[in-house]
Amino acid sequence: MRPATVTLGDRTFTFRRAEEQDVAALAALLADDAIGAGREDASDLAPYLRAFHAVDGDPRHLLVVAEDHHAAIAATLQLSLLPGLSRRGALRAQIEGVRVAAAFRGAALGSTLVRWAVNEARARGAGLVQLTTDLRRDDARRFYERLGFVGSHLGMKVDLRADPSVS
Amino acid sequence: MRPATVTLGDRTFTFRRAEEQDVAALAALLADDAIGAGREDASDLAPYLRAFHAVDGDPRHLLVVAEDHHAAIAATLQLSLLPGLSRRGALRAQIEGVRVAAAFRGAALGSTLVRWAVNEARARGAGLVQLTTDLRRDDARRFYERLGFVGSHLGMKVDLRADPSVS
Repeated sequence: MRPATVTLGDRTFTFRRAEEQDVAALAALLADDAIGAGREDASDLAPYLRAFHAVDGDPRHLLVVAEDHHAAIAATLQLSLLPGLSRRGALRAQIEGVRVAAAFRGAALGSTLVRWAVNEARARGAGLVQLTTDLRRDDARRFYERLGFVGSHLGMKVDLRADPSVS
Repeated sequence: MRPATVTLGDRTFTFRRAEEQDVAALAALLADDAIGAGREDASDLAPYLRAFHAVDGDPRHLLVVAEDHHAAIAATLQLSLLPGLSRRGALRAQIEGVRVAAAFRGAALGSTLVRWAVNEARARGAGLVQLTTDLRRDDARRFYERLGFVGSHLGMKVDLRADPSVS
């Protein structure tokens, strides 16, 4: 991706591809969340670094960060492009891991970043963009509805690490 | 994948990787569905073939078919493995496009195929398996709950082909 610069009020942000040196800040950002906290452990970066390299090495995945003019990581998301036969072979764009750092909320950074991702997905030939949001995050649902997303599906998961006996 | 053979009642099925010559049957199977019908067009195979080759050429995606002993396509699903930083860098397995042909329903073929996919995901190192199911498919939700899936998320989509002006 080519870095993009956006100005929101009196702040300027750069959207760019994440680099290895961002991983510590990204792990901390994932952990700094009421729902995410119990699932993350930013004190051990090794699994995050392994995952970063798997993402970074595959052109179908794009891990994006928004940084402010002091190079602080303000927000992140991952955009993935998934081929599949459904919907007349539509290329499916999926957004995962959307986070905005607490100090940067309320300034339209999250919506600007998600809109950027939807446009990037369209430019890469996607026929739809999909994401899931925890049912407990009422404000997230409304946030995505304002951006044009329709909550038509139930997102179901099996955690293979929590309960390896399932199914 | 290595083909797997399962016996359900007096029928034997083979689970195997889809091949190009399966695409016409798979497109017809996707179209033979109350919700899917309006989104599919099996009379024009070209987009399905393009999508098949994109899936088939990427080792992160596995399009599986179940065929009966007459080599009829009885069921299908796609299993995709998505790296990402969330959940301590958990590799995420995603199941899409689950369909069981009408003539083969009610014989536990769907649940056997999904269980096979969950086990395949675990063998490939996934930390969780996720899927979404249309909120209108009440029976599908119960089907996945019986297999251990928890409906914790809202699945939201933007159809870029239906409304290119969105966001």
